Amino acid sequence: MNPIDIQVYVTDIGRRAREASRHTARAATAAKDAALLAAASAIRREAATLAAENAKDLEAARSAGHDPAFVDRLALTPKVIESMAVGLEQIAALPDPVGEMSDLRFRPSGIQVGKMRVPLGVIGIVYESRPNVTIDAAGLCIKSGNATILRGGSEAIHSNRALAVLIREGLEHAGLPADAVQLIDTTDRAAVGALIQSPEFVDVIVPRGGKSLIERISKDARVPVIKHLDGICHVYVDDAADLEKAVRIADNAKTQRYSPCNTMETLLVDRGIAPRLLPPLGRIYVDKGVELRGCATTRELLAAAGLPCAAATEADWATEYLAPILAIRVVDGLDEAMAHIARWGSAHTDAIVTEDHSRAMRFLREVDSASVMINASTRFADGFEYGLGAEIGISTDKLHARGPVGLEGLTSMKWVVFGSGQVRS
Amino acid sequence: MNPIDIQVYVTDIGRRAREASRHTARAATAAKDAALLAAASAIRREAATLAAENAKDLEAARSAGHDPAFVDRLALTPKVIESMAVGLEQIAALPDPVGEMSDLRFRPSGIQVGKMRVPLGVIGIVYESRPNVTIDAAGLCIKSGNATILRGGSEAIHSNRALAVLIREGLEHAGLPADAVQLIDTTDRAAVGALIQSPEFVDVIVPRGGKSLIERISKDARVPVIKHLDGICHVYVDDAADLEKAVRIADNAKTQRYSPCNTMETLLVDRGIAPRLLPPLGRIYVDKGVELRGCATTRELLAAAGLPCAAATEADWATEYLAPILAIRVVDGLDEAMAHIARWGSAHTDAIVTEDHSRAMRFLREVDSASVMINASTRFADGFEYGLGAEIGISTDKLHARGPVGLEGLTSMKWVVFGSGQVRS
Repeated sequence: MNPIDIQVYVTDIGRRAREASRHTARAATAAKDAALLAAASAIRREAATLAAENAKDLEAARSAGHDPAFVDRLALTPKVIESMAVGLEQIAALPDPVGEMSDLRFRPSGIQVGKMRVPLGVIGIVYESRPNVTIDAAGLCIKSGNATILRGGSEAIHSNRALAVLIREGLEHAGLPADAVQLIDTTDRAAVGALIQSPEFVDVIVPRGGKSLIERISKDARVPVIKHLDGICHVYVDDAADLEKAVRIADNAKTQRYSPCNTMETLLVDRGIAPRLLPPLGRIYVDKGVELRGCATTRELLAAAGLPCAAATEADWATEYLAPILAIRVVDGLDEAMAHIARWGSAHTDAIVTEDHSRAMRFLREVDSASVMINASTRFADGFEYGLGAEIGISTDKLHARGPVGLEGLTSMKWVVFGSGQVRS
Repeated sequence: MNPIDIQVYVTDIGRRAREASRHTARAATAAKDAALLAAASAIRREAATLAAENAKDLEAARSAGHDPAFVDRLALTPKVIESMAVGLEQIAALPDPVGEMSDLRFRPSGIQVGKMRVPLGVIGIVYESRPNVTIDAAGLCIKSGNATILRGGSEAIHSNRALAVLIREGLEHAGLPADAVQLIDTTDRAAVGALIQSPEFVDVIVPRGGKSLIERISKDARVPVIKHLDGICHVYVDDAADLEKAVRIADNAKTQRYSPCNTMETLLVDRGIAPRLLPPLGRIYVDKGVELRGCATTRELLAAAGLPCAAATEADWATEYLAPILAIRVVDGLDEAMAHIARWGSAHTDAIVTEDHSRAMRFLREVDSASVMINASTRFADGFEYGLGAEIGISTDKLHARGPVGLEGLTSMKWVVFGSGQVRS
């Protein structure tokens, strides 16, 4: 399409979404749940169609020379198809956040003032290769009363089209407007530009994907963005830590999985406990194939235990490895640990391991990250683990939603006033 | 200053603010309150100095040919000076929002997850002529644990400098860093540009002033903006309204004060009640000197009562008059009223007057405005009337703070996790 046609196309989708959002905002809980369950059924019924459409994307990806990891992310295996259906059923089972009223208080004027949770309106989701995001994101938006405009990766276009048809079938089955979920059905990149610069049609953009996508969208957007940048997560093992807990948490935070954003990338160890902690912990990491990069003290202690450790540079403190590599630094106490986190961290998730109550509470209060933990693995920073039921992403922003974003993050609070004829004097 | 010097200057202020914000975030409630009270005392003590510095601004404004309303807004009269001191004392008396923990729940994994309210960090305030904003905004930011960078209007530079000295004196008196409140001490416009494009130093920008200022900042900012655009507020008088309440509310919403953003600009009247409502209400407006602009039905009904009413055009539905002018439209029921509000309103404040419960609750839920009211005057949409104690502004955004923004709007919620050695399996 030429640039003018793209603008016309996206504007038309935006108008339809805005109109549909008026209906979904007032939709009954039962109707929204019925739409989600009907879409889940349709996904199971059309598993073969989905696999056939997905095969086109997979073939194109292989021909284009994409690596196996990329092709894997693109694949709608029977397991992925079933998990999409189950995901919609789980969202249907969650409480409806819309319309919740809270903090209703009478004021001296006689009015009663409180807040009501309402949908944000129209949510734009821009994502990369995984086609299951089409269903997960649409499901969360439907339940939270929002309309959604989806823009998936061009490599997944056949899969995404087939999935969008099924979720729209679910909406129609429940008497809701199909346009509550729309797919931008062009692989033209200009469509993303048009979408993220249309505050009249889009209330918030949620980018899902690699850092370059998110940075590009944040830079160009004229619509608020709920985003996730780096996950440079720290565990600080205090002098007063329980050694056994410290080993267990530091091991789990790094090695339970290497690629998630909530995996520890830098271990900070107090000088007092380092000689007792680092040799046994270093042995665990080395046995699991984790490459260690440490400060001078760390290297001395590990070398004395016969363990390899490269010299860390400042670049290591600033890197999200997403791989079996760990930076380690010995620090002089809590203040130096918190200063390191403030200087090098990404405000995602940071944990302290200590039995000292005052230091634990200082760390909890003073570390300015989306999730701050005492004596627990950073790997817990997750919508399911936090009890949100589902998550659309993890935000490293400070405004609006912070950390794991579930249904509530897709809503806002308006003020409601109950009066009986009051006027202002 | 040349552009490079401006950038260096603003960067230096930003770094100082970021550093100060680490201290204010963990400051004790007593220290913050002591700073506010010391600043209040200093303002009273230095009333003569403030008046003298203000006189320079007033003289310059008069020489520059500014109109009397402008000069009025600039004036630090004894009453304004006292109200700034009292305002700081009121903020000191409010509960500290920082550190509040809520929703702590144990999860099946054994961790306990909840939220903690924390300062946003560094708040940039860009405002126009009123110098008292220097104190009001700084006071709210101090109490909420934030550092502030203030950029007032060039016409108030002498007044703002003198006020900033006193609030910084208060901070130092309480052992807090003076750089928690900094004034950008140049009238160069490029400083605003540098400020709003520095997400590394500024977490949110709050523009206070006319629409053109706010639009310019929203357009250029690379930092989130808590903003207020139009206040095109509606009162819809339903068929089932109590006539006496309807007259009282519609009168108050328009005439109690003409210039506030929460004043009604368009009155919507159901066709069924219009013949009984419009003649007596129109008489009140006309007697108070309000110019009426109505639809054809409105004009017929008012003409029959001998009352003047010009023909409204679409431009009237879209205008925030901030003046004794009122647009009136007769509609066919609730749906048409809500459609008018969705099409022409500014999502600020809208009210219904009705005794019909179902219609009242539909209006409350379905009207997508920051404040939605039943049987109350739109003039109540205000931080003091809502019980916030003070407000930094009224937001017409949907993300983060919506409607009147008090101390809580200057904070965010981070996740906190209490564990006892848990790891993820």
